[in-house]
Amino acid sequence: MTDEIIAQFPLLQKQQDGKRMVYLDSGATSQRPQAVLDAVSRFYKEDNANPHRGVYALGERATAAYESARDTVAEFLHAKREEVIFTRNATEALNLVAYSWGLHNLKAGDRVVVSILEHHSNLIPWQQVCRATGAELTFLYTDQRGVISDEEIEKKITKGVKLVAITHVSNVLGLVSPVQKVVDRAHAVNAVCVLDAAQSAPHLQLDVTKLGVDFLAFSGHKLYAPLGIGVLWGRKELLDDMPPFLTGGDMIESVREQDATWAELPQKFEAGTQNAGGAVGLAAAIHWMQGVGYDTIARRENDVYQYAWQVLSQLPHVTLYGTAQGQHCGAISFNVEDVHPHDVATILDADAVCVRAGHHCAQPLLHHLGLNSCCRASFAVYNTREDVDALAASLQKVRKWLGYGS
Amino acid sequence: MTDEIIAQFPLLQKQQDGKRMVYLDSGATSQRPQAVLDAVSRFYKEDNANPHRGVYALGERATAAYESARDTVAEFLHAKREEVIFTRNATEALNLVAYSWGLHNLKAGDRVVVSILEHHSNLIPWQQVCRATGAELTFLYTDQRGVISDEEIEKKITKGVKLVAITHVSNVLGLVSPVQKVVDRAHAVNAVCVLDAAQSAPHLQLDVTKLGVDFLAFSGHKLYAPLGIGVLWGRKELLDDMPPFLTGGDMIESVREQDATWAELPQKFEAGTQNAGGAVGLAAAIHWMQGVGYDTIARRENDVYQYAWQVLSQLPHVTLYGTAQGQHCGAISFNVEDVHPHDVATILDADAVCVRAGHHCAQPLLHHLGLNSCCRASFAVYNTREDVDALAASLQKVRKWLGYGS
Repeated sequence: MTDEIIAQFPLLQKQQDGKRMVYLDSGATSQRPQAVLDAVSRFYKEDNANPHRGVYALGERATAAYESARDTVAEFLHAKREEVIFTRNATEALNLVAYSWGLHNLKAGDRVVVSILEHHSNLIPWQQVCRATGAELTFLYTDQRGVISDEEIEKKITKGVKLVAITHVSNVLGLVSPVQKVVDRAHAVNAVCVLDAAQSAPHLQLDVTKLGVDFLAFSGHKLYAPLGIGVLWGRKELLDDMPPFLTGGDMIESVREQDATWAELPQKFEAGTQNAGGAVGLAAAIHWMQGVGYDTIARRENDVYQYAWQVLSQLPHVTLYGTAQGQHCGAISFNVEDVHPHDVATILDADAVCVRAGHHCAQPLLHHLGLNSCCRASFAVYNTREDVDALAASLQKVRKWLGYGS
Repeated sequence: MTDEIIAQFPLLQKQQDGKRMVYLDSGATSQRPQAVLDAVSRFYKEDNANPHRGVYALGERATAAYESARDTVAEFLHAKREEVIFTRNATEALNLVAYSWGLHNLKAGDRVVVSILEHHSNLIPWQQVCRATGAELTFLYTDQRGVISDEEIEKKITKGVKLVAITHVSNVLGLVSPVQKVVDRAHAVNAVCVLDAAQSAPHLQLDVTKLGVDFLAFSGHKLYAPLGIGVLWGRKELLDDMPPFLTGGDMIESVREQDATWAELPQKFEAGTQNAGGAVGLAAAIHWMQGVGYDTIARRENDVYQYAWQVLSQLPHVTLYGTAQGQHCGAISFNVEDVHPHDVATILDADAVCVRAGHHCAQPLLHHLGLNSCCRASFAVYNTREDVDALAASLQKVRKWLGYGS
């Protein structure tokens, strides 16, 4: 197999016990192309200094590298550069909004709406902020396929709702959420809308203007960038009104013994030394994706996703969750009859097939679907139909290994 | 010059306009040895997956790499592993304590004591938490040399003080703080003691048992590790009593629609996907330092520091801040008569000498010393007497370049 995309990922060239690695856990974290690793190393070998600190040439190169990465992210999101805030990951970005916007704008009697699909990172911060402010947390429920109906959106997002937080793509079901309807309804009742794009950023072209949301969060590490870098995008007028979240160096205008004033955006939300190496890696990952081409990414991923649904749905004793209808990307979840998902994942691992088993940081969704846990195969641009075939072949061994007749 | 330590730092082999790089801004961020860059690349090429998520072999290797890094940090600090929390940097670690311990333990009438030496990262979080809780923020002042007297400690740390936050080493003056006296006094009045070790961790052997503090924060990027990884250490009994700071995936025990329960330490404070590559890099940096040897590090750095003080103090028109007495590491700050520090740094840059100019994220200290800004040369194990000579030679050109007679 000579696939020029796969060839760029060193880890995917490894074998496990003589078997080709079939990495199907990109929804947890992706692998990295050599170009990203090289960009980070080059930063440390040639341009490393503390951004915004040094007036010497090396310090200015570090600042330029960091701020150029911000430009790349801004272009990636079709956003203004001062609206792009670097965080550690999507989780921190969502916590920033909960602490800074939530604690200062919510009060008893207000309502916050999330969907039952949410990853814990876009749920627990809202539980916490509701507890602190007395606001009420309300859910958009799905049907058993994972679909949120128009009626549910109209029924739940009503006057008194101040914030709606929703995932762009379910990390369990891979289904794209009805963002447009949620945003329209949220704005009709003057609520702000937070989009968790952790599972969409690697797959879909994001345009904050078209999406119409007010905040958007994603992690670099799910889209071929290093761990430890993420992004919060927010509307300037909202960010300007918010107090800082973390405080410390580089986010101030001036500091006296008893008080301080804050820097302009985006520095106001970037306290302390930032992960410039990570930001450079994220920019390199975005450039790498642009080099592959969003059309190529979508074509490859859609083909593999649809093939996977078709193949897995025909396997005996395998139950898929969600629905084949609607727009999908990223993840397919399933169980094997009478076998614990952890056992499934362990048996698949013997064939070097890496899938995740558990609650996928989405316990309320699994409870809603009547599950304790399940297996998840998740895909990136480097996955192929061969990977799906390997998954299917390995899945067919599972029940036999455990002594079932088939 | 064949120095086997310097040879390990790729960036220090670079030239700037044909001149050898003289990097004297390690107090802002250090350079990285090849061994650290290699360790991070190796993680991504061989062991990368999301720690704590996958039961497959690759996922277990990622978890082992991340948790082994925690063991290395625990050993580095002489601490228990569950007391070591990975953060982005020292700033986030200090904010974590302010938000989680501070907001839940301070009330109107309580007092928080910091020193006037503090970096903004160990000052503004306490300003903010005092504002939120009604506690009072009080300062330990220094004399003009930067020394905190025993009398000041006894006068300020009295009954009613609930928390004392102090830097281990001033990032401006390089002077080691009287930590033992502060800790003894803090504990005598039942206050907890927070140590900002950002400027000491690269230079001094840290032992949390001997130091006797209750919380300690440092950044990896100042001690040869990548950007984007830092550490909070805290006493288990305090951390156990604190609510989580960031919430999301991997820090929970169970999640229902309206509430959640928390994982044990240290996971409770590590929400979302952590910077495992950064943690691996931090462990590699600590191993690299151990390979060089703390005695060698101390011997080289003390020699360079004392030589720098001696050479710079003899330069005409150069004023050093602080004092030659007492234990020092890291930084020497100075000004050139009638020349703005930014101009000094810019002129030095023409000789490839990198120093920082400004308020060094310590505006209250500079104000206390009667300064608006100053230059700072800061040292790491790769600096030599030759670097000091280059700095001195370049400093002697500054006033001439600007048209002064000497």
